[in-house]
Amino acid sequence: MEVVVLRMGHRVGRDKRISTHVGLVARAFGARGIIYAGTIEPSVIETLKKVVETWGGPFIVEVKPSYKAIISEWKKTGGIVVHLTMYGENIESSDVLEKIRNSGKVMVIVGAEKVSADLYELADFNVAIGNQPHSEVAALAVFLDRLFKGEELLKEFEGARLKINPSSRGKHVVKIDE
Amino acid sequence: MEVVVLRMGHRVGRDKRISTHVGLVARAFGARGIIYAGTIEPSVIETLKKVVETWGGPFIVEVKPSYKAIISEWKKTGGIVVHLTMYGENIESSDVLEKIRNSGKVMVIVGAEKVSADLYELADFNVAIGNQPHSEVAALAVFLDRLFKGEELLKEFEGARLKINPSSRGKHVVKIDE
Repeated sequence: MEVVVLRMGHRVGRDKRISTHVGLVARAFGARGIIYAGTIEPSVIETLKKVVETWGGPFIVEVKPSYKAIISEWKKTGGIVVHLTMYGENIESSDVLEKIRNSGKVMVIVGAEKVSADLYELADFNVAIGNQPHSEVAALAVFLDRLFKGEELLKEFEGARLKINPSSRGKHVVKIDE
Repeated sequence: MEVVVLRMGHRVGRDKRISTHVGLVARAFGARGIIYAGTIEPSVIETLKKVVETWGGPFIVEVKPSYKAIISEWKKTGGIVVHLTMYGENIESSDVLEKIRNSGKVMVIVGAEKVSADLYELADFNVAIGNQPHSEVAALAVFLDRLFKGEELLKEFEGARLKINPSSRGKHVVKIDE
Protein backbone atom coordinates (compact mmCIF):
# COMPACT_ATOMS: atom_id res chain seq x y z
CA MET A 1 0.00 0.00 0.00
CA GLU A 2 1.22 3.46 -0.94
CA VAL A 3 0.73 6.14 1.69
CA VAL A 4 1.47 9.85 1.42
CA VAL A 5 0.94 12.39 4.20
CA LEU A 6 -0.38 15.90 3.60
CA ARG A 7 0.26 18.44 6.35
CA MET A 8 -2.10 21.42 6.25
CA GLY A 9 -2.59 24.61 8.19
CA HIS A 10 1.01 25.01 9.35
CA ARG A 11 1.47 28.33 11.17
CA VAL A 12 4.97 29.74 10.70
CA GLY A 13 6.81 29.99 14.01
CA ARG A 14 4.20 28.40 16.22
CA ASP A 15 3.99 25.01 14.48
CA LYS A 16 7.62 24.56 13.51
CA ARG A 17 8.47 21.70 15.83
CA ILE A 18 5.08 20.01 15.63
CA SER A 19 5.26 20.00 11.81
CA THR A 20 8.79 18.58 12.00
CA HIS A 21 7.53 15.78 14.25
CA VAL A 22 4.68 15.11 11.79
CA GLY A 23 7.28 14.65 9.03
CA LEU A 24 9.48 12.39 11.15
CA VAL A 25 6.48 10.26 12.07
CA ALA A 26 5.39 10.00 8.44
CA ARG A 27 8.83 8.58 7.56
CA ALA A 28 9.27 6.33 10.60
CA PHE A 29 5.77 4.87 10.30
CA GLY A 30 6.03 3.86 6.67
CA ALA A 31 4.70 6.69 4.49
CA ARG A 32 6.37 7.22 1.12
CA GLY A 33 6.61 10.96 1.69
CA ILE A 34 5.09 14.13 3.07
CA ILE A 35 3.72 17.20 1.34
CA TYR A 36 3.44 20.47 3.25
CA ALA A 37 0.70 22.71 1.86
CA GLY A 38 1.40 26.42 2.11
CA THR A 39 4.32 28.28 3.66
CA ILE A 40 6.79 26.53 5.94
CA GLU A 41 10.22 27.34 7.37
CA PRO A 42 13.06 25.93 5.22
CA SER A 43 14.61 24.54 8.43
CA VAL A 44 11.76 22.03 8.78
CA ILE A 45 12.50 20.65 5.32
CA GLU A 46 16.26 20.64 6.01
CA THR A 47 15.81 18.71 9.26
CA LEU A 48 13.81 16.03 7.46
CA LYS A 49 16.31 15.77 4.62
CA LYS A 50 19.17 15.37 7.09
CA VAL A 51 17.29 12.56 8.82
CA VAL A 52 16.85 10.80 5.47
CA GLU A 53 20.58 11.23 4.70
CA THR A 54 21.55 9.78 8.08
CA TRP A 55 18.90 7.15 8.74
CA GLY A 56 17.86 6.26 5.20
CA GLY A 57 14.91 6.40 2.86
CA PRO A 58 13.36 6.58 0.39
CA PHE A 59 11.24 9.43 1.75
CA ILE A 60 10.05 12.37 -0.31
CA VAL A 61 9.57 15.84 1.20
CA GLU A 62 7.70 18.46 -0.79
CA VAL A 63 6.16 21.90 -0.29
CA LYS A 64 3.26 22.93 -2.53
CA PRO A 65 1.09 26.05 -2.38
CA SER A 66 -2.46 24.71 -2.66
CA TYR A 67 -3.96 21.82 -0.73
CA LYS A 68 -6.91 21.75 -3.13
CA ALA A 69 -4.61 21.14 -6.08
CA ILE A 70 -2.69 18.45 -4.15
CA ILE A 71 -5.88 16.60 -3.22
CA SER A 72 -7.42 16.89 -6.67
CA GLU A 73 -4.21 15.61 -8.30
CA TRP A 74 -4.07 12.66 -5.89
CA LYS A 75 -7.68 11.71 -6.55
CA LYS A 76 -7.04 11.71 -10.32
CA THR A 77 -4.47 8.92 -9.80
CA GLY A 78 -7.13 6.79 -8.09
CA GLY A 79 -5.99 7.47 -4.54
CA ILE A 80 -8.33 7.94 -1.60
CA VAL A 81 -8.10 10.73 0.97
CA VAL A 82 -8.28 10.20 4.74
CA HIS A 83 -8.59 13.21 7.01
CA LEU A 84 -7.60 12.66 10.64
CA THR A 85 -9.82 14.71 12.93
CA MET A 86 -11.20 14.33 16.45
CA TYR A 87 -14.70 14.83 14.99
CA GLY A 88 -14.52 11.85 12.64
CA GLU A 89 -15.55 8.21 12.86
CA ASN A 90 -13.77 6.57 15.77
CA ILE A 91 -11.18 4.14 14.41
CA GLU A 92 -11.78 1.82 17.38
CA SER A 93 -15.57 1.52 17.18
CA SER A 94 -16.19 1.71 13.42
CA ASP A 95 -15.17 -0.34 10.39
CA VAL A 96 -13.55 2.66 8.70
CA LEU A 97 -10.05 1.18 8.74
CA GLU A 98 -11.20 -1.94 6.91
CA LYS A 99 -12.77 0.23 4.22
CA ILE A 100 -9.56 2.24 3.86
CA ARG A 101 -7.51 -0.96 3.56
CA ASN A 102 -9.39 -1.80 0.37
CA SER A 103 -7.53 1.01 -1.35
CA GLY A 104 -4.00 0.70 -2.65
CA LYS A 105 -3.25 4.42 -2.42
CA VAL A 106 -4.00 6.50 0.66
CA MET A 107 -3.35 10.18 1.32
CA VAL A 108 -3.50 10.96 5.04
CA ILE A 109 -4.25 14.59 5.90
CA VAL A 110 -3.27 16.06 9.24
CA GLY A 111 -4.22 19.64 10.03
CA ALA A 112 -3.13 22.04 12.73
CA GLU A 113 -5.61 23.41 15.28
CA LYS A 114 -8.18 24.56 12.77
CA VAL A 115 -8.66 23.38 9.23
CA SER A 116 -10.82 24.68 6.43
CA ALA A 117 -14.38 23.34 6.65
CA ASP A 118 -14.30 22.11 3.04
CA LEU A 119 -11.78 19.45 4.05
CA TYR A 120 -14.53 17.38 5.67
CA GLU A 121 -16.17 17.18 2.23
CA LEU A 122 -13.01 16.78 0.17
CA ALA A 123 -11.95 13.76 2.24
CA ASP A 124 -13.30 10.31 1.47
CA PHE A 125 -13.03 9.43 5.15
CA ASN A 126 -12.91 11.59 8.27
CA VAL A 127 -11.28 9.42 10.93
CA ALA A 128 -10.86 10.06 14.64
CA ILE A 129 -8.08 8.45 16.64
CA GLY A 130 -10.45 8.70 19.55
CA ASN A 131 -12.84 11.64 19.87
CA GLN A 132 -10.75 13.54 22.42
CA PRO A 133 -8.42 16.48 21.81
CA HIS A 134 -4.77 15.42 21.59
CA SER A 135 -2.16 15.78 18.86
CA GLU A 136 -1.86 15.46 15.10
CA VAL A 137 1.53 13.83 15.68
CA ALA A 138 -0.09 11.12 17.81
CA ALA A 139 -3.06 10.71 15.49
CA LEU A 140 -0.81 10.14 12.48
CA ALA A 141 1.40 7.65 14.32
CA VAL A 142 -1.46 5.53 15.66
CA PHE A 143 -3.31 5.62 12.34
CA LEU A 144 -0.25 4.39 10.41
CA ASP A 145 0.62 1.84 13.11
CA ARG A 146 -2.84 0.34 12.78
CA LEU A 147 -2.95 0.63 8.99
CA PHE A 148 0.35 -1.25 8.61
CA LYS A 149 -0.44 -3.58 11.55
CA GLY A 150 2.83 -2.75 13.30
CA GLU A 151 5.05 -4.03 10.51
CA GLU A 152 6.22 -0.49 9.73
CA LEU A 153 8.29 -0.56 12.93
CA LEU A 154 10.54 -3.24 11.42
CA LYS A 155 11.07 -1.45 8.09
CA GLU A 156 14.64 -1.43 6.77
CA PHE A 157 15.57 1.93 5.27
CA GLU A 158 17.86 2.19 2.25
CA GLY A 159 21.09 4.15 2.15
CA ALA A 160 21.29 4.70 5.91
CA ARG A 161 24.60 5.81 7.42
CA LEU A 162 23.55 4.90 10.94
CA LYS A 163 21.47 2.09 12.35
CA ILE A 164 20.45 1.19 15.87
CA ASN A 165 20.89 -2.23 17.37
CA PRO A 166 17.92 -2.49 19.75
CA SER A 167 19.07 -2.93 23.33
CA SER A 168 17.56 -3.28 26.77
CA ARG A 169 20.26 -0.94 28.16
CA GLY A 170 22.15 2.01 26.69
CA LYS A 171 22.70 3.16 23.11
CA HIS A 172 24.03 0.86 20.42
CA VAL A 173 24.51 2.73 17.16
CA VAL A 174 26.20 1.09 14.19
CA LYS A 175 27.93 3.04 11.41
CA ILE A 176 27.25 1.59 7.98
CA ASP A 177 30.18 1.78 5.56
CA GLU A 178 29.34 1.56 1.91
CA MET B 1 -3.77 -1.10 35.01
CA GLU B 2 -2.60 2.20 36.45
CA VAL B 3 -0.41 4.27 34.12
CA VAL B 4 1.34 7.54 34.89
CA VAL B 5 3.49 9.49 32.42
CA LEU B 6 6.70 11.27 33.38
CA ARG B 7 7.91 13.97 31.00
CA MET B 8 11.63 14.74 31.37
CA GLY B 9 14.10 17.13 29.82
CA HIS B 10 11.61 19.84 28.89
CA ARG B 11 13.41 22.91 27.54
CA VAL B 12 11.59 26.14 28.34
CA GLY B 13 10.44 27.90 25.15
CA ARG B 14 11.57 25.31 22.65
CA ASP B 15 9.53 22.36 23.95
CA LYS B 16 6.39 24.19 25.03
CA ARG B 17 4.03 22.83 22.40
CA ILE B 18 5.57 19.36 22.24
CA SER B 19 5.27 18.99 26.03
CA THR B 20 1.65 20.16 25.82
CA HIS B 21 0.97 17.50 23.19
CA VAL B 22 2.63 14.89 25.41
CA GLY B 23 0.22 15.82 28.21
CA LEU B 24 -2.83 15.74 25.92
CA VAL B 25 -1.81 12.34 24.60
CA ALA B 26 -1.29 11.00 28.13
CA ARG B 27 -4.88 11.97 28.98
CA ALA B 28 -6.52 10.90 25.70
CA PHE B 29 -4.73 7.53 25.67
CA GLY B 30 -5.74 6.47 29.14
CA ALA B 31 -3.02 7.53 31.59
CA ARG B 32 -4.12 8.57 35.07
CA GLY B 33 -1.92 11.65 35.00
CA ILE B 34 1.32 13.30 33.94
CA ILE B 35 4.23 14.57 35.98
CA TYR B 36 6.61 17.14 34.48
CA ALA B 37 10.06 16.95 36.02
CA GLY B 38 11.87 20.27 36.27
CA THR B 39 10.86 23.72 35.08
CA ILE B 40 7.95 24.22 32.70
CA GLU B 41 5.84 27.21 31.56
CA PRO B 42 2.66 27.64 33.65
CA SER B 43 0.73 27.95 30.36
CA VAL B 44 1.38 24.26 29.58
CA ILE B 45 -0.22 23.25 32.86
CA GLU B 46 -3.11 25.70 32.35
CA THR B 47 -3.84 24.34 28.87
CA LEU B 48 -4.06 20.80 30.22
CA LYS B 49 -6.28 21.82 33.13
CA LYS B 50 -8.64 23.63 30.75
CA VAL B 51 -8.88 20.51 28.60
CA VAL B 52 -9.79 18.46 31.67
CA GLU B 53 -12.45 21.05 32.64
CA THR B 54 -13.97 20.98 29.18
CA TRP B 55 -13.53 17.38 28.08
CA GLY B 56 -13.45 15.59 31.44
CA GLY B 57 -11.19 13.55 33.62
CA PRO B 58 -9.99 12.42 36.02
CA PHE B 59 -6.48 13.41 34.94
CA ILE B 60 -3.80 14.66 37.31
CA VAL B 61 -1.17 17.19 36.21
CA GLU B 62 1.85 17.79 38.42
CA VAL B 63 5.23 19.51 38.29
CA LYS B 64 8.04 18.21 40.51
CA PRO B 65 11.68 19.24 40.68
CA SER B 66 13.57 15.94 40.60
CA TYR B 67 13.01 13.01 38.25
CA LYS B 68 15.15 10.81 40.51
CA ALA B 69 12.85 11.43 43.47
CA ILE B 70 9.75 10.80 41.31
CA ILE B 71 11.10 7.49 40.02
CA SER B 72 12.32 6.31 43.39
CA GLU B 73 8.97 7.15 45.01
CA TRP B 74 7.10 5.27 42.26
CA LYS B 75 9.26 2.19 42.63
CA LYS B 76 8.62 2.12 46.37
CA THR B 77 4.88 1.68 45.64
CA GLY B 78 5.65 -1.42 43.56
CA GLY B 79 5.35 0.26 40.17
CA ILE B 80 7.61 -0.48 37.21
CA VAL B 81 9.30 2.11 35.01
CA VAL B 82 9.27 2.07 31.20
CA HIS B 83 11.52 4.47 29.32
CA LEU B 84 10.55 5.12 25.70
CA THR B 85 13.67 5.56 23.58
CA MET B 86 14.65 4.84 19.99
CA TYR B 87 17.61 2.85 21.34
CA GLY B 88 15.48 0.39 23.31
CA GLU B 89 14.00 -3.03 22.59
CA ASN B 90 11.71 -2.80 19.58
CA ILE B 91 8.13 -3.21 20.74
CA GLU B 92 7.26 -4.98 17.48
CA SER B 93 9.99 -7.62 17.48
CA SER B 94 10.42 -8.33 21.19
CA ASP B 95 8.20 -9.64 23.99
CA VAL B 96 8.78 -6.54 26.10
CA LEU B 97 5.13 -5.44 26.04
CA GLU B 98 3.97 -8.80 27.42
CA LYS B 99 6.45 -8.47 30.28
CA ILE B 100 5.21 -4.95 31.02
CA ARG B 101 1.58 -6.13 31.04
CA ASN B 102 2.39 -8.37 34.00
CA SER B 103 2.64 -5.25 36.14
CA GLY B 104 -0.37 -3.41 37.54
CA LYS B 105 1.42 -0.07 37.80
CA VAL B 106 3.45 1.44 34.99
CA MET B 107 5.29 4.74 34.82
CA VAL B 108 6.06 5.70 31.21
CA ILE B 109 8.96 8.12 30.78
CA VAL B 110 9.30 10.28 27.69
CA GLY B 111 12.30 12.53 27.33
CA ALA B 112 13.09 15.40 25.02
CA GLU B 113 15.97 15.22 22.54
CA LYS B 114 18.61 14.15 25.04
CA VAL B 115 18.06 12.48 28.37
CA SER B 116 20.43 11.77 31.19
CA ALA B 117 22.36 8.52 30.69
CA ASP B 118 21.36 7.19 34.10
CA LEU B 119 17.78 6.87 32.89
CA TYR B 120 18.69 3.74 30.90
CA GLU B 121 19.69 2.13 34.20
CA LEU B 122 16.88 3.55 36.34
CA ALA B 123 14.24 2.18 33.96
CA ASP B 124 13.08 -1.43 34.24
CA PHE B 125 12.47 -1.46 30.48
CA ASN B 126 13.89 0.64 27.68
CA VAL B 127 11.38 0.35 24.85
CA ALA B 128 11.62 1.57 21.25
CA ILE B 129 8.52 2.34 19.20
CA GLY B 130 10.65 1.40 16.23
CA ASN B 131 14.37 2.19 16.17
CA GLN B 132 14.06 5.27 13.99
CA PRO B 133 14.10 8.91 15.06
CA HIS B 134 10.60 10.38 15.32
CA SER B 135 8.68 11.97 18.20
CA GLU B 136 8.06 11.44 21.89
CA VAL B 137 4.44 12.40 21.25
CA ALA B 138 4.08 9.57 18.75
CA ALA B 139 6.02 7.09 20.85
CA LEU B 140 3.79 7.69 23.87
CA ALA B 141 0.58 7.41 21.83
CA VAL B 142 1.53 4.16 20.11
CA PHE B 143 2.87 2.63 23.33
CA LEU B 144 -0.37 3.39 25.22
CA ASP B 145 -2.53 2.30 22.27
CA ARG B 146 -0.80 -1.06 22.25
CA LEU B 147 -0.70 -1.38 26.05
CA PHE B 148 -4.46 -0.78 26.33
CA LYS B 149 -5.21 -2.71 23.09
CA GLY B 150 -7.14 0.20 21.60
CA GLU B 151 -9.79 0.30 24.31
CA GLU B 152 -8.49 3.64 25.58
CA LEU B 153 -10.00 5.29 22.48
CA LEU B 154 -13.50 4.48 23.75
CA LYS B 155 -12.92 5.76 27.28
CA GLU B 156 -15.74 7.88 28.75
CA PHE B 157 -14.41 10.85 30.71
CA GLU B 158 -16.17 12.10 33.84
CA GLY B 159 -17.46 15.64 34.33
CA ALA B 160 -17.07 16.66 30.68
CA ARG B 161 -18.87 19.79 29.47
CA LEU B 162 -18.46 18.85 25.83
CA LYS B 163 -18.56 15.56 23.99
CA ILE B 164 -18.18 14.67 20.34
CA ASN B 165 -20.61 12.52 18.43
CA PRO B 166 -18.38 10.75 15.91
CA SER B 167 -19.38 11.58 12.36
CA SER B 168 -18.27 10.78 8.85
CA ARG B 169 -18.81 14.47 7.87
CA GLY B 170 -18.51 17.72 9.80
CA LYS B 171 -18.36 18.50 13.50
CA HIS B 172 -20.97 17.26 15.94
CA VAL B 173 -20.29 18.58 19.42
CA VAL B 174 -22.77 18.02 22.25
CA LYS B 175 -23.00 20.25 25.33
CA ILE B 176 -23.54 18.29 28.51
CA ASP B 177 -25.80 19.97 31.08
CA GLU B 178 -25.44 18.84 34.63
